[in-house]
Amino acid sequence: MTQIAYTQRACHDQERITDFLRTQRVGVLGLHTDDYPYPVPVNYVWHNDAVYFHGVGSGRKGELLQQAPKVGFTVFVEHGTVTARVACHADTAYLCVMVFGTAQQVTDPAEAADALQALVDKLTPGYYRSTITARMIERYRSGTGGNPVAVFRITPDLVTAKENTATADELFTI
Amino acid sequence: MTQIAYTQRACHDQERITDFLRTQRVGVLGLHTDDYPYPVPVNYVWHNDAVYFHGVGSGRKGELLQQAPKVGFTVFVEHGTVTARVACHADTAYLCVMVFGTAQQVTDPAEAADALQALVDKLTPGYYRSTITARMIERYRSGTGGNPVAVFRITPDLVTAKENTATADELFTI
Repeated sequence: MTQIAYTQRACHDQERITDFLRTQRVGVLGLHTDDYPYPVPVNYVWHNDAVYFHGVGSGRKGELLQQAPKVGFTVFVEHGTVTARVACHADTAYLCVMVFGTAQQVTDPAEAADALQALVDKLTPGYYRSTITARMIERYRSGTGGNPVAVFRITPDLVTAKENTATADELFTI
Repeated sequence: MTQIAYTQRACHDQERITDFLRTQRVGVLGLHTDDYPYPVPVNYVWHNDAVYFHGVGSGRKGELLQQAPKVGFTVFVEHGTVTARVACHADTAYLCVMVFGTAQQVTDPAEAADALQALVDKLTPGYYRSTITARMIERYRSGTGGNPVAVFRITPDLVTAKENTATADELFTI
C-alpha cells in the first residue's frame, strides 16, 4: 500500500483518528468495478475496530463487493478555505481518514444485530426503546422489494489520515 | 454503465443536479488502483459542463489518473436521519450526484487558469483582486517540492443522482 505522499500533512494521532471515525455519520465507500470506479456515500459505524454499514440485500454494493471485496473507505470533514495573500497560496482546512481493507457481508445474525444497534445508537441516540436482535435481522424484509438487510464489515488492513488545521480567523467567511 | 438499482430514489431534475454541482465545495474522486480503490476528497468546480480539480504535479492522484483515467466523482449532502416507529424503518435524507467520466490533466495554461479562477470565485468570492492568468499557471511552483500546479478535467459520460427528501420535523434531532 502506498503511503501518504505529502507527509507534512500526515496525522498519526490514533486517538484523534478513532474519535473522528466514531463520531462522523457518513463515509464514502470506494468500490472497484469493471468500468468506472464507484464511490458511494454510506452511513456507517466504527465498531469493534471495524467499519460496519448496511444496504438492501439486492443492491449494487453487495454485487460489486462479491466480485471485488477490497475497498477504500474515506471519512472527511472540510472546515473551509484558508486564505492567503495570493489565491495560488490559498489552502483548505480538513481532516481526512482513509480505511483500506476487505469488506465482507456479515453472515452471523448476532453480529449483524450488534452492528446495526451500534449504528442506531450513533445516529439516533436514545430514540428507540427496543434493541435490535438476531431474530429481527433474520425476519426482516424491506418494504421495497422484500429483501433481507445486508450488513457489511470492513476489516481494516491500513488506516491513514491527513490533516490541515487552521484557526477560525484564517478561514474565509463571506 | 449500470443504472440506479433503486429507481424510486432517482432524481432527474437537471437544473437541481447542476445547481447542486455548482454550489457544493467538495466531491470525492474515486480512482482505480492495482490494489485498494482510492476515494479521495477534493475541492472542485463545475465549469463548462465538466468537473475541474487540482493537485500538486507530483501527487498520487496524477499518477493514478495516468494509469487509469476513468473515474467516478461523487458529491453529496446528508441532511440527517428520518425517524420511524421502529429503527429498522429509519432512513436517511440526502442528495447524491455521481459523475462518471474520464479525467485528463489540462495542458492548455489558458484553460487551467480559467478553471482555477472559477474555483477561486466559488470558494472565496470577492476575496482576491487579481485574476489568475495563463502566465501565472506556467510560472507557478509550489512551496512544497517546487512542483507546478496540476489541473484536471473530468469530462462526464454519465451523471446520475439519487435523493431522499424529508421535512425538518421528520428528521431526528437531539
